[in-house]
Amino acid sequence: MHVLLNLSGRTGLHKGCAYLAPSITNKRLTMEIKQVDISNKTPERRVAMATGRIKLRPETVERIRKGEVEKGDPFQVARLAGIQAAKLTPLLMPLCHQLKLEHVELELKLTDSAVEATAKVVATEKTGVEMEALTALTIALLNIWDVLKAYEKDENGQYPVTEISNIRVISKVKQRVDVP
Amino acid sequence: MHVLLNLSGRTGLHKGCAYLAPSITNKRLTMEIKQVDISNKTPERRVAMATGRIKLRPETVERIRKGEVEKGDPFQVARLAGIQAAKLTPLLMPLCHQLKLEHVELELKLTDSAVEATAKVVATEKTGVEMEALTALTIALLNIWDVLKAYEKDENGQYPVTEISNIRVISKVKQRVDVP
Amino acid sequence: MHVLLNLSGRTGLHKGCAYLAPSITNKRLTMEIKQVDISNKTPERRVAMATGRIKLRPETVERIRKGEVEKGDPFQVARLAGIQAAKLTPLLMPLCHQLKLEHVELELKLTDSAVEATAKVVATEKTGVEMEALTALTIALLNIWDVLKAYEKDENGQYPVTEISNIRVISKVKQRVDVP
Amino acid sequence: MHVLLNLSGRTGLHKGCAYLAPSITNKRLTMEIKQVDISNKTPERRVAMATGRIKLRPETVERIRKGEVEKGDPFQVARLAGIQAAKLTPLLMPLCHQLKLEHVELELKLTDSAVEATAKVVATEKTGVEMEALTALTIALLNIWDVLKAYEKDENGQYPVTEISNIRVISKVKQRVDVP
Amino acid sequence: MHVLLNLSGRTGLHKGCAYLAPSITNKRLTMEIKQVDISNKTPERRVAMATGRIKLRPETVERIRKGEVEKGDPFQVARLAGIQAAKLTPLLMPLCHQLKLEHVELELKLTDSAVEATAKVVATEKTGVEMEALTALTIALLNIWDVLKAYEKDENGQYPVTEISNIRVISKVKQRVDVP
Amino acid sequence: MHVLLNLSGRTGLHKGCAYLAPSITNKRLTMEIKQVDISNKTPERRVAMATGRIKLRPETVERIRKGEVEKGDPFQVARLAGIQAAKLTPLLMPLCHQLKLEHVELELKLTDSAVEATAKVVATEKTGVEMEALTALTIALLNIWDVLKAYEKDENGQYPVTEISNIRVISKVKQRVDVP
Repeated sequence: MHVLLNLSGRTGLHKGCAYLAPSITNKRLTMEIKQVDISNKTPERRVAMATGRIKLRPETVERIRKGEVEKGDPFQVARLAGIQAAKLTPLLMPLCHQLKLEHVELELKLTDSAVEATAKVVATEKTGVEMEALTALTIALLNIWDVLKAYEKDENGQYPVTEISNIRVISKVKQRVDVP
Repeated sequence: MHVLLNLSGRTGLHKGCAYLAPSITNKRLTMEIKQVDISNKTPERRVAMATGRIKLRPETVERIRKGEVEKGDPFQVARLAGIQAAKLTPLLMPLCHQLKLEHVELELKLTDSAVEATAKVVATEKTGVEMEALTALTIALLNIWDVLKAYEKDENGQYPVTEISNIRVISKVKQRVDVP
Repeated sequence: MHVLLNLSGRTGLHKGCAYLAPSITNKRLTMEIKQVDISNKTPERRVAMATGRIKLRPETVERIRKGEVEKGDPFQVARLAGIQAAKLTPLLMPLCHQLKLEHVELELKLTDSAVEATAKVVATEKTGVEMEALTALTIALLNIWDVLKAYEKDENGQYPVTEISNIRVISKVKQRVDVP
Repeated sequence: MHVLLNLSGRTGLHKGCAYLAPSITNKRLTMEIKQVDISNKTPERRVAMATGRIKLRPETVERIRKGEVEKGDPFQVARLAGIQAAKLTPLLMPLCHQLKLEHVELELKLTDSAVEATAKVVATEKTGVEMEALTALTIALLNIWDVLKAYEKDENGQYPVTEISNIRVISKVKQRVDVP
Repeated sequence: MHVLLNLSGRTGLHKGCAYLAPSITNKRLTMEIKQVDISNKTPERRVAMATGRIKLRPETVERIRKGEVEKGDPFQVARLAGIQAAKLTPLLMPLCHQLKLEHVELELKLTDSAVEATAKVVATEKTGVEMEALTALTIALLNIWDVLKAYEKDENGQYPVTEISNIRVISKVKQRVDVP
Repeated sequence: MHVLLNLSGRTGLHKGCAYLAPSITNKRLTMEIKQVDISNKTPERRVAMATGRIKLRPETVERIRKGEVEKGDPFQVARLAGIQAAKLTPLLMPLCHQLKLEHVELELKLTDSAVEATAKVVATEKTGVEMEALTALTIALLNIWDVLKAYEKDENGQYPVTEISNIRVISKVKQRVDVP
């Protein structure tokens, strides 16, 4: 019986499934998908920065250095696509709010076996912009992959080397502003 | 003079910058952004799979296990957002073609300190679907981050632990089909 | 002749068709599609709530209760899709303005033969959010249909029972706020 | 013990929550959100029709008849927005596949206290188009609401009369075609 | 009375306004917005090309030549945005069908006082792609404007010189293909 | 040597290509794509107007006058699509910021051989709205082309007459507002 109660309680925690079993605790039910209400918050200047990298074959890095990439300059594609993607964050993250981004910036650096990227997003909003920075960064890196696809595939069409990793938020700040 | 010719040739390689200096070599100019023409290819059944992971605090993993996540079940959000994102690939990757995806699937597994994800995409098209699988995967992982944000931040609002990594294409196959 | 003039005037009222027949009245021409100018209004806290329902076969309701739905939990899909749709309102309603929604919430209730839904939208904007609440609600209900399609179709692939109805705005309030 | 097994099995049915409790039955787990795989189906000519209505104040209907609607002809807005919305179905229904619609048509009829609408969608695809017809229909009706908002609100800004209802799929057919 | 009937017929021609007056002729009513049905057509290889130009200040052209553009290489932005826009044609042209473009290409040429652009679009579809080529071209030219805005404005923030013109479809061909 | 330095400097100016050749000047590198940071600017009331025209066959103009256009009233389609497109500007112009437009208006005038269009956009934002006005205008004109396609093509499917031209920004003003 004890086990029964426990299981029932557990199921009840998942309000998304709550039509199955009435909760026997009065604990707040939490697994139902919901968006945070930010209406009572104050707009502040928000800046977030994210980093990450894509590992590439040395031959591909050499191609970029020589400017021999059939689909064009991967850095220019990545910058533009990253900026675009940041603006599309609320479409890609269903629970994110619509923000007006005031600046999106992408820095890309070529090492011997990778492209290292940093994305910075600025906005004066009621919630943070780290998901926007992460989206800009990630889509920028995916575009580098896309532009260089032909050089990263092996003879069987597989990608033995290419890998995106180390995606982190390195800074997230907010600062009270005087709205004019 | 020799140096001059070399440099001029180099600049010319970047057709995107080619209004600067006429190319003096007949080497293929390649850095101008362009999309591959797939019109002469044959539709084939394409399947691609991508994997990756998001590292989380053990306390956050425990919360998922207990079903105590305020914004709701992170796995359900990730699955739905990943499927949606796969369909949006040509919007996020400017050089990708518009494909009709016939199946997008996301598998998520909870370990002690991470969520491991696999995305699979199927389509009968003239070009591969690995960018679609990577997009589904990456956006799924970003959504897990978004849903769990509150538990991953430290007292200064930073993310000392959270990290997305190991994003790879693990399989990419094509197979002739008889279009009925 | 009097009748003629009247009719001519009527046609003239339809400025969209007004190149056909010059208006002979100086009455304001009104059928030309146009968007309201909200630039001189003051942002206020806006809350709108809409309700509606989808009628289902009792067998389908039983399936939801038992958790036997092949495509997954219809309530979780509906919540997420409804939140997403609210954000897309200006894309779906050409004359709606772009608003930054601060909260979208969906409540779903299972009865013996239907799902009853309520959508609530909050924003601090120059115009109301009832269209956003209606969009969230309607798309949530359509997603429930989509997830349960297989169980609602009869042997001829038709939907003899499924019906969405009673879509109404049940509350719409605005409240002056002190913009900080 | 029997109860325990049942409950455990029930929880397990909800694979979306399955990290909570290992399933003890081998019954197919079904509440995890997933998209149907249509890759092995054959494209067929698909036609679906949906109907619905929006109830309006008689005074508003009279205004439409007289052509005195400030925001313009509600029928033209509804037709265009309905066609657009049908194309956006895979964005609004996360589990819907991307289809190429070959025809979207909206018929609108004015009665004494309502607008009655019918949407028809045609495509040659591997899956049906009823969700597309329902989306076209619903968004068309919502646009009629939006265009007529000013005349439907009472002195308190509420909508005592306006109501969308009777949304049904009235026909859904498929027909083998010889793809040239 | 006869005149009345005639006028009534005229009004009836505009089916979009047809709730005003029943048509008394059996002439095809044509002003109601509707999409062409392409379901009975055969897919063919379609190629369309469009051209156009944007007039710029000679000083701005010189800046492009020298590579002194703060927002970056306008040609790279234009190419990428043009390719993206072509894919968004059905979103921008409500009556256009969704097509899968197999190639979008933009050629840009710098003259002494303008950028001349050509867009080419290829697809194997049931309807032509000239609207897609025009969209790619036009959005490419608008992006050149956007990137060079700062140099084209006079001291009052106006654009005395900048002008987009000569937008034409220069070629549109179709060709039967054997669908494999 | 002088030539070498110059060329090298030139290449270096294009930071997008800067991995090729290290800059030897300390001049600001400028061809790397980047978005302007508007976070420190003050919102002001912005109004921009753009004009342009589409040349048509006289027979097509006559058809519009008579209301004999199969796909429906081109002016209504153009107005609605133009308003929609203005809202999509940040999607079409990657370097444009997301603005909340408070009014979009399209005026269309039929001459003997053309449609002349004016677009006006109003917003209270940190940056101007001329790109939004140009986008509304251009997409409106493209939609007129799309609606009238059938009448503008010659027997070979070409467009000998149709031409969009004279696209200009005719006015751009900003005005300090007291944000309430």
